[in-house]
Amino acid sequence: MTTASAVPKSPRRGRPGYDQDSVLEIAVQVFNRHGYDATSMGMLAVELGVSKSAIYHHVPSKGDLLRLALDEALIPLEAIGEDERAQNGGTIERLEYILRSTIRVLIDRQPYVTLLLRLRGNTEIERDALQRRRTVDHTIVDLVTAAQAEGRVRSDVEPRTTTRLMFGMINSLVEWYRPEGPVSPAQVEENAIAMIVDGLRARA
Amino acid sequence: MTTASAVPKSPRRGRPGYDQDSVLEIAVQVFNRHGYDATSMGMLAVELGVSKSAIYHHVPSKGDLLRLALDEALIPLEAIGEDERAQNGGTIERLEYILRSTIRVLIDRQPYVTLLLRLRGNTEIERDALQRRRTVDHTIVDLVTAAQAEGRVRSDVEPRTTTRLMFGMINSLVEWYRPEGPVSPAQVEENAIAMIVDGLRARA
Repeated sequence: MTTASAVPKSPRRGRPGYDQDSVLEIAVQVFNRHGYDATSMGMLAVELGVSKSAIYHHVPSKGDLLRLALDEALIPLEAIGEDERAQNGGTIERLEYILRSTIRVLIDRQPYVTLLLRLRGNTEIERDALQRRRTVDHTIVDLVTAAQAEGRVRSDVEPRTTTRLMFGMINSLVEWYRPEGPVSPAQVEENAIAMIVDGLRARA
Repeated sequence: MTTASAVPKSPRRGRPGYDQDSVLEIAVQVFNRHGYDATSMGMLAVELGVSKSAIYHHVPSKGDLLRLALDEALIPLEAIGEDERAQNGGTIERLEYILRSTIRVLIDRQPYVTLLLRLRGNTEIERDALQRRRTVDHTIVDLVTAAQAEGRVRSDVEPRTTTRLMFGMINSLVEWYRPEGPVSPAQVEENAIAMIVDGLRARA
């Protein structure tokens, strides 16, 4: 399982059935449709048109499928914060870089991010994923706070609340945005950044 | 069933059981917890600690409960658009009035709006509610378009996309905002309006 591409590899020629990436792609759709808790390995087998033992050939358990699927969202999201452009430079420029990159991951990894955003934290794997996601949120709160201290973000906003609100806006993309529709990913990104970043910017 | 107050009336003294508002208040909680489709009248009876026939004393069917619960969100949301301040005045001022009022209704009617936002459109009642909700969205698209034509909203945004994004932000409140927490409803409102309205405003 690599995270270099959001498009699962096609099954190897001459080998019947699915490879692990294809199993994952179908599994995340079933999880999103019925909810992770309500999905059984038997349901996944029916959906894939294979036996349960064929699934167990690829992954030991439903929890492992969940972990692999969540990594498809979390690894690229975490990589954003580790990028040089998120670490160095002006506060607002770093904030803008992180938000733009987050929007791109949300669009590129839509089903995997949907799964992440709908987690209820019922299992250890889910709680671990939610914890990793919260770390990303904290980076944004810290950047808004720092930009406000510098006078670059308006003084009348509260960093934690604005962070919640901006993620409300950005995360909603997975529910309604379809990249094959009339609005390009670049246009959605510009529109969201216009409101969030220019809305927060201190006026001269 | 009145919509003047979000707080259900307490059961009348001396009368055992629940009045219709209290039944509705519990029902919407159960719908939000398990999903409307998965909730049976039997489950509601268990939750209320009464017999099924006691529920049927208040409402003829589960669909009627849903309709009444959705009206608790839709009637005040629709009233916003009919207010004089939504109909007359500058485009941006009308937009701001509608958004501020929407945020207030979302906070005041949180469980009922949650139910509305999670509808899947499986029944006629649900499709009708979704249609009424879309009418509100169209008003916003029209106002952003008009404000843009006047040069009061920046020319580089797309009205339909920004409307989706701003509702993504505002609607997220029902998922994470708790009025009893450290951030006041007024503060949340100011923060959201700062990003949306000032973010969209054309610069001099």
